Amino acid sequence: MTEDSIFTKIIKGEIPSHKIYEDDKTYAFLDIHPIQPGHVLVVPKIQVDNIWDLPDEDYHALMDVTKHIAFAMQQKLEKRVGVQVIGIDVPHAHVHLVPFTDVKEFRAIPDDTAKPNNDELAKVAEILKMEED
Amino acid sequence: MTEDSIFTKIIKGEIPSHKIYEDDKTYAFLDIHPIQPGHVLVVPKIQVDNIWDLPDEDYHALMDVTKHIAFAMQQKLEKRVGVQVIGIDVPHAHVHLVPFTDVKEFRAIPDDTAKPNNDELAKVAEILKMEED
Repeated sequence: MTEDSIFTKIIKGEIPSHKIYEDDKTYAFLDIHPIQPGHVLVVPKIQVDNIWDLPDEDYHALMDVTKHIAFAMQQKLEKRVGVQVIGIDVPHAHVHLVPFTDVKEFRAIPDDTAKPNNDELAKVAEILKMEED
Repeated sequence: MTEDSIFTKIIKGEIPSHKIYEDDKTYAFLDIHPIQPGHVLVVPKIQVDNIWDLPDEDYHALMDVTKHIAFAMQQKLEKRVGVQVIGIDVPHAHVHLVPFTDVKEFRAIPDDTAKPNNDELAKVAEILKMEED
């Protein structure tokens, strides 16, 4: 049996997260080391390492929720919202949604060793959180 | 009437491209200034600036073709395939598919003023080109 990824533990509520959205197939929450404020991770509930190996129905759900959230983010934050899928840090497929105004912001590299600013994250989550359609 | 984007001109065949795939809604071709060899652009045929503003059926087609191509790319190139959507260079939605082995490769910044290596691009296109499902 595969060990639970950190994202599966977040989905199960074993690790706290700044949740933005959840439905039966998808979970979205704030990255605690944001590339820019409002950086969201969209994750399929099934634990598959590589996004291209997702079953079509989970991939479609993931991409629909990605669009749903990104569209709202750009309205709420008045910024463009870009995508990064890299996927070599956590072996559980995930889509980064990054609000930005210029390429430099989009390409910024956060300090993953910094202590998360949970007060700030909670404020941003309050702005971005969404109900299921 | 909106002026044709460089991608629309490519789709119409007015500008040559190293084509990988085409169907009724989507066109994929090699970036002439690749982040890494095998860097593909997947583009909806309708000219919409922002990916999140695409009609759902065009967005779904784009994301399905993206998965279809990325899955094949990782088999053929034996690399992971990441995604970047930035979208501030050309006002026509596009998905970057970037084969890479480590984050440094994924984050490389190509020299957009360099003369394209069309011989090399043609060889890569030969490897990556796909038939419609």
